[in-house]
Amino acid sequence: MTKKESAKKGTVGVVKTEYFTFSYPPDYFILSNGSQIGPVTLAYETYGVLNENRSNAILILHALSGSAHAAGFYSEKDKNTGWWDLYIGPGKAFDTEKYFVICSNVLGGCSGSTGPASINPETGRAYGMDFPMVTIADMVNAQKKLIDHLGIKKLLAVAGGSMGGMQALQWTISYPDMVESCIAIATSASLSAQGIAFNEVGRQAIFNDPHWNNGNYYNSRIPKAGLSLARMIGHITYMSEKHMHEKFGRKFQDSHQGKAGVSSEFMVESYLKYQGIKFVERFDANSYIYITRAIDHFDLKEDFGGSLTAAFENVSANYLVISFTSDWLYPSSNSKEIVRALRVNGKNVNYIDIETDNGHDAFLLPNEILEKNIKNFLKSEFKKSEF
Amino acid sequence: MTKKESAKKGTVGVVKTEYFTFSYPPDYFILSNGSQIGPVTLAYETYGVLNENRSNAILILHALSGSAHAAGFYSEKDKNTGWWDLYIGPGKAFDTEKYFVICSNVLGGCSGSTGPASINPETGRAYGMDFPMVTIADMVNAQKKLIDHLGIKKLLAVAGGSMGGMQALQWTISYPDMVESCIAIATSASLSAQGIAFNEVGRQAIFNDPHWNNGNYYNSRIPKAGLSLARMIGHITYMSEKHMHEKFGRKFQDSHQGKAGVSSEFMVESYLKYQGIKFVERFDANSYIYITRAIDHFDLKEDFGGSLTAAFENVSANYLVISFTSDWLYPSSNSKEIVRALRVNGKNVNYIDIETDNGHDAFLLPNEILEKNIKNFLKSEFKKSEF
Repeated sequence: MTKKESAKKGTVGVVKTEYFTFSYPPDYFILSNGSQIGPVTLAYETYGVLNENRSNAILILHALSGSAHAAGFYSEKDKNTGWWDLYIGPGKAFDTEKYFVICSNVLGGCSGSTGPASINPETGRAYGMDFPMVTIADMVNAQKKLIDHLGIKKLLAVAGGSMGGMQALQWTISYPDMVESCIAIATSASLSAQGIAFNEVGRQAIFNDPHWNNGNYYNSRIPKAGLSLARMIGHITYMSEKHMHEKFGRKFQDSHQGKAGVSSEFMVESYLKYQGIKFVERFDANSYIYITRAIDHFDLKEDFGGSLTAAFENVSANYLVISFTSDWLYPSSNSKEIVRALRVNGKNVNYIDIETDNGHDAFLLPNEILEKNIKNFLKSEFKKSEF
Repeated sequence: MTKKESAKKGTVGVVKTEYFTFSYPPDYFILSNGSQIGPVTLAYETYGVLNENRSNAILILHALSGSAHAAGFYSEKDKNTGWWDLYIGPGKAFDTEKYFVICSNVLGGCSGSTGPASINPETGRAYGMDFPMVTIADMVNAQKKLIDHLGIKKLLAVAGGSMGGMQALQWTISYPDMVESCIAIATSASLSAQGIAFNEVGRQAIFNDPHWNNGNYYNSRIPKAGLSLARMIGHITYMSEKHMHEKFGRKFQDSHQGKAGVSSEFMVESYLKYQGIKFVERFDANSYIYITRAIDHFDLKEDFGGSLTAAFENVSANYLVISFTSDWLYPSSNSKEIVRALRVNGKNVNYIDIETDNGHDAFLLPNEILEKNIKNFLKSEFKKSEF
């Protein structure tokens, strides 16, 4: 969506990324695997105004390739809006006239938050592969420090798609008293074997790039080809076969090229290459490795002795779970499994399987049903929280 | 299937690969793109005996990674049988007590037939990327020379899965008078945009390998990492999500590794890596590029002015078309499109969509319904041809 189109619907306007840093001691930050890390910086943005009784805060959680920049633009000249600008702004699903919306870059990320590209204070050089393994729960624990810092005792909602949905679910389990409600979109309580396989071939593409150099490339050439290929692989899985067919079919990039040419290029190939090249400009290969690994290892069932029902036993949030019929990376069955486990526990959960050809990407694309469902759910949750 | 298991069902025993070479002039071999190539060698194997009136010959067409070695083993000590040994042998679907079965390595391949790894007579060095672009029709035209050479006027059947199915269909269109019947399994009249995309990321994995060196690696280190990754990507698409889940789930390779480890490995990852490593030992990276490109460019509809009906207008074969319900690379809808186009032309076609979780790989795995359908179809076709 262009700035112009976004402005039509209502825009949060020019925004600024802020930074919150905490260190140990006194603020110990211990990761799931037992290692300590610090200082930790989280880049974050906020849109809208926190109300007097601090009851209107919504934490937006981003997916693999996201950042703190969820809405608005950085300057009047900036042509690109935040990654969820379609859904965040005055009058939009996450209505910034009503709610105070927060989004932070995940721990392990590369858009302002501490990650493999950050300087390791013990060596004075970038962490690279010395960065400790982070989990979805670690990301959430770091966000909790930010929410404390902002003086918010209870979030009206946590919301996200894909890995953002994993974080949202984890929030309701790790901090049940801090979350009124949870919007988990196109996500899963654990990734499928096929999903792990796709993440793995993406990582292998990076490992195979000689410029990756075991993660030590910050002072030399970066592993562009590897990261670009990882992104290309990812993109195939984000689109449905039908959407790809309708968008590109078997058309050639250059219609003058004959079908028998070795180098003649299909449109779908050019599209993927373009996505790969664009990605390399803004993303760090090591972060790609760490974050996909965090996604692979996320497993709420395993965390609770093999029972997803047990995972949701002590949650107190109300849930809106949304899946998309053509999403084959995080298929509807994954969402239904979450819904079942919540219902067995007698929790309050709304579920909708939205009919669309847009595949996993659907949560990032215009979708009226998605917009309305989020809007109405938040309205009802906000009303409840006011009593 | 081990030699032992194969022997139980009936084996063709120890076989030998033969070579047929033709050159120009006098035997001009002109490719679809107009370029000439020669001499051309085709590696081939035969099983069973050609009957007196030469009416029992079946040509088996292999898929992307196949070879002429479709059945039997190379010595008594050889532990591996041919790639379709499950279906070729005494009493099996392609019953070598009744039929004379032929299988040749495709033009552009790397298992004995002329391909990018062969010596270019004009330079005295391997062709590499100077090898001309080959199409599925070119592969079929080369096979035609072999069939002529074997003194066979009419094939009882052409049969294959995946790219083998494409060749089978092409045979019935290119040489309608030479084919009694066609068995096209898990195939398509053209690959989907998603299929092209997967082939492309596989090729990019090879291109990214510095040892690929624009295809000039025959006298130095080979692009192992790139080809291995291409194969890993391919393997994901050959299996259904369900099959992958049942086979590996989220289990770790080493159960002692904790979930928080960076290097802890899921079973599905180890499996794919093993498949990649095994493949590199027997396959040429440049062949992978050329053959996947031939698959991408295969388009019967485009060949006939955008009409698949027109493509099948002049065929005279009887068809058995088979798809697998969980095959998402060559989905059942692709087979149904072929069946519809044949029926519009009033052609004789049997179609079966076999219920299985084995995905695209199903045609290479044990499947009683597949076996029975091939067997009965051939029996009936052989009976007809005898009158």
